[in-house]
Amino acid sequence: MNTFVLHGNIVHTPALSELKLCTDSYAVCENGLCAGVFDVLPEKFSHLPVYDFGDMIIIPGYVDLHLHAPQYQNCGLGMDMELLDWLEAQTFPTEARFADISYADMEYTRFVEDLLKSATTRACVFGTIHKESTMLLMEKLEASGLCSMVGKVSMDRNCPDNLKEDDSAAALESVESWLDEIDGRFSSTAPIITPRFVPSCSNELLEGLGVLSERHNLPIQSHLSENLSEIDWVQELCPDCPNYASVYDKFGLMGDRTIMAHCVHLTEDEMDIIHDRGTYIAHCPTSNVNIRSGIAPVRKFLDRGLNVGLGTDVSGGHTLDMAEVIRQALGLSKLLWRLGSEEFKPLKTVEAFYLATRGGGSFFGKVGAFEPGYEFDAVVIDDRDINTRGEQDLEKRFEKIIYLSSSWNVCAKFVAGRRLF
Amino acid sequence: MNTFVLHGNIVHTPALSELKLCTDSYAVCENGLCAGVFDVLPEKFSHLPVYDFGDMIIIPGYVDLHLHAPQYQNCGLGMDMELLDWLEAQTFPTEARFADISYADMEYTRFVEDLLKSATTRACVFGTIHKESTMLLMEKLEASGLCSMVGKVSMDRNCPDNLKEDDSAAALESVESWLDEIDGRFSSTAPIITPRFVPSCSNELLEGLGVLSERHNLPIQSHLSENLSEIDWVQELCPDCPNYASVYDKFGLMGDRTIMAHCVHLTEDEMDIIHDRGTYIAHCPTSNVNIRSGIAPVRKFLDRGLNVGLGTDVSGGHTLDMAEVIRQALGLSKLLWRLGSEEFKPLKTVEAFYLATRGGGSFFGKVGAFEPGYEFDAVVIDDRDINTRGEQDLEKRFEKIIYLSSSWNVCAKFVAGRRLF
Repeated sequence: MNTFVLHGNIVHTPALSELKLCTDSYAVCENGLCAGVFDVLPEKFSHLPVYDFGDMIIIPGYVDLHLHAPQYQNCGLGMDMELLDWLEAQTFPTEARFADISYADMEYTRFVEDLLKSATTRACVFGTIHKESTMLLMEKLEASGLCSMVGKVSMDRNCPDNLKEDDSAAALESVESWLDEIDGRFSSTAPIITPRFVPSCSNELLEGLGVLSERHNLPIQSHLSENLSEIDWVQELCPDCPNYASVYDKFGLMGDRTIMAHCVHLTEDEMDIIHDRGTYIAHCPTSNVNIRSGIAPVRKFLDRGLNVGLGTDVSGGHTLDMAEVIRQALGLSKLLWRLGSEEFKPLKTVEAFYLATRGGGSFFGKVGAFEPGYEFDAVVIDDRDINTRGEQDLEKRFEKIIYLSSSWNVCAKFVAGRRLF
Repeated sequence: MNTFVLHGNIVHTPALSELKLCTDSYAVCENGLCAGVFDVLPEKFSHLPVYDFGDMIIIPGYVDLHLHAPQYQNCGLGMDMELLDWLEAQTFPTEARFADISYADMEYTRFVEDLLKSATTRACVFGTIHKESTMLLMEKLEASGLCSMVGKVSMDRNCPDNLKEDDSAAALESVESWLDEIDGRFSSTAPIITPRFVPSCSNELLEGLGVLSERHNLPIQSHLSENLSEIDWVQELCPDCPNYASVYDKFGLMGDRTIMAHCVHLTEDEMDIIHDRGTYIAHCPTSNVNIRSGIAPVRKFLDRGLNVGLGTDVSGGHTLDMAEVIRQALGLSKLLWRLGSEEFKPLKTVEAFYLATRGGGSFFGKVGAFEPGYEFDAVVIDDRDINTRGEQDLEKRFEKIIYLSSSWNVCAKFVAGRRLF
């Protein structure tokens, strides 16, 4: 089942600036792990079943490091607002509806169907505060075969009454109960501790989540430094902390298994914390443009050796399509360079592709490239409708995929050695 | 043939900030012109044939004020370069191939097929220097039913030998001969005088094109102030002119039937020239990001009362899809506001939609809205795949079309009262 060969044109990035183009080649999957890419299939693999994708292009799947499943229905809505207004007008009223499990069933079914069809193989997902709905989301993701980390959101202040947990004790109890109930139920769907962001989490809640994360050895996801008003608010709420990142850090929430989304306006001190802890940054360029947050200095992050992946941030981001996120990451890095920070070179196409595959993939382990020992994720792209001239140069075909492909072009998907379609 | 009624949900913009949402309504076309939009079909039109699009959404088509047909094949390629390098590496070698009429036939067939399928109804198009190929492009556009203005490009310096006209006299003779040969041949495809840009046109050529434009009463299209190196180069080439716009102006090339693409880095004096002459600006945000030109201050243009439309600038822009151009226009205006020009409010979704319809449409006359006397252009959008929840609120459906639609969603198109599919 999970030992086979793919044949096609294989493209991946062994390193940040290195594009590996393997025309007419074979990628071997043994027991769910990659055994290598070969231009001639070695004798020892010649007995394996072959999925032959002919002239199509095979890439590692995209890893979406940050998205909100309940907001999927809001994609493209409310895009004339900034973060805090948009949360009140758009996000919170929608999330409150997920108290209703039949509503969640309908919405999450659609979300998982569309995520499955996309070029994304793995995702780190926010649910809502609702335990039952979040478990339903996990069931659906598990059934899809995608690999994911899913968080029941924690929030106990500064949000509408119908979306606020009673107090920190109740919020922590809800997380513990959720962890108990899902214990051992899933193989490709893991829980992740998910404080929404500092403004909606009391110190007691943050502290308790830090303890829970350590006790259960769980990863963490949250938001950091997205919007200027949000940052001011955090400073008011936490006057004893020198900056936003240090609030999370104080409670043991920054580590090398933590993802912080956005990081648009980090100070140098915050970058030091992120560097020292090995925390991941989920760069979400479509969202950062849509709700006017700004441009995160990704080149600076990379030059400093920080861990960076990409996220759609649905529905601050308007689409599940990671190719559009890659394009926007490229675009924003070019604009930042153009508009005043010429010391930070724009991202190259290959670098943004790396961030979307191996950059975020490393949060899941050995993921995001066709190298021996890596989990075998692969997405097969049928580029005929975007390569109508029949261009044969594989690098040009790759560039067109980055700039012109969408979910429409995905014709097969493998995750951790399992074929999903 | 060109008198009928459309039924559906009709959306357009009578003014820059005014979104008109006409649920379950009728748009009447009489002899190719709009006779109005009605929630109940008036008795006097009750005998007309009705195209019933049910619950679908009907918008005026998009007007693409700037694109290069021969570069269509290069969409998405070379996007790690800036303008002048990209012209040398990507654009000029491709354009040179259009000396071969059979090559042009193949490429322009594909271009016109894809433009037809898109949500664009009208376009101002650059060809190449080649007269025969440009006429072939015009024939294909005419046969498609789209309305267009098409330019044989003029250039007599600073370009590869295989793409340079011998001298200004030869270049002007080629334009005159082109105009003679197409005289009276087309009804929806008009010639437009097309100096590429100042660096590749001698003073004699620019002067001659100004004279030709006046003699034949023809519109003009060119490029202005796209890239900082280009602007420096123009200053070197034309030391007697105070700025880039004044070079065109000196030769009678700035008027209210001129489109200048880009205008990213205009000085106040240049904006004064553009204002006084009534010249159109084709804002091309996807291109301005891709080849790192910068952000044109569109809000400033609008506040000053300048004429502004949108353009894909294929293939500096990577797609023919005007919805993506609208999204990027919105995004860039938000970033400009965020990154230092807070006096210029971000564009609202409705405003960017206006620019893509009526803003550019006015270059073609009364075009871009469903108002009495306007030429009847309409594009029918089937939004079922982007509105999977069955949202009924027409404004929300409109927002999703702007953020999520593509050519895939176009299911019928009418231009100047004629149904194209």
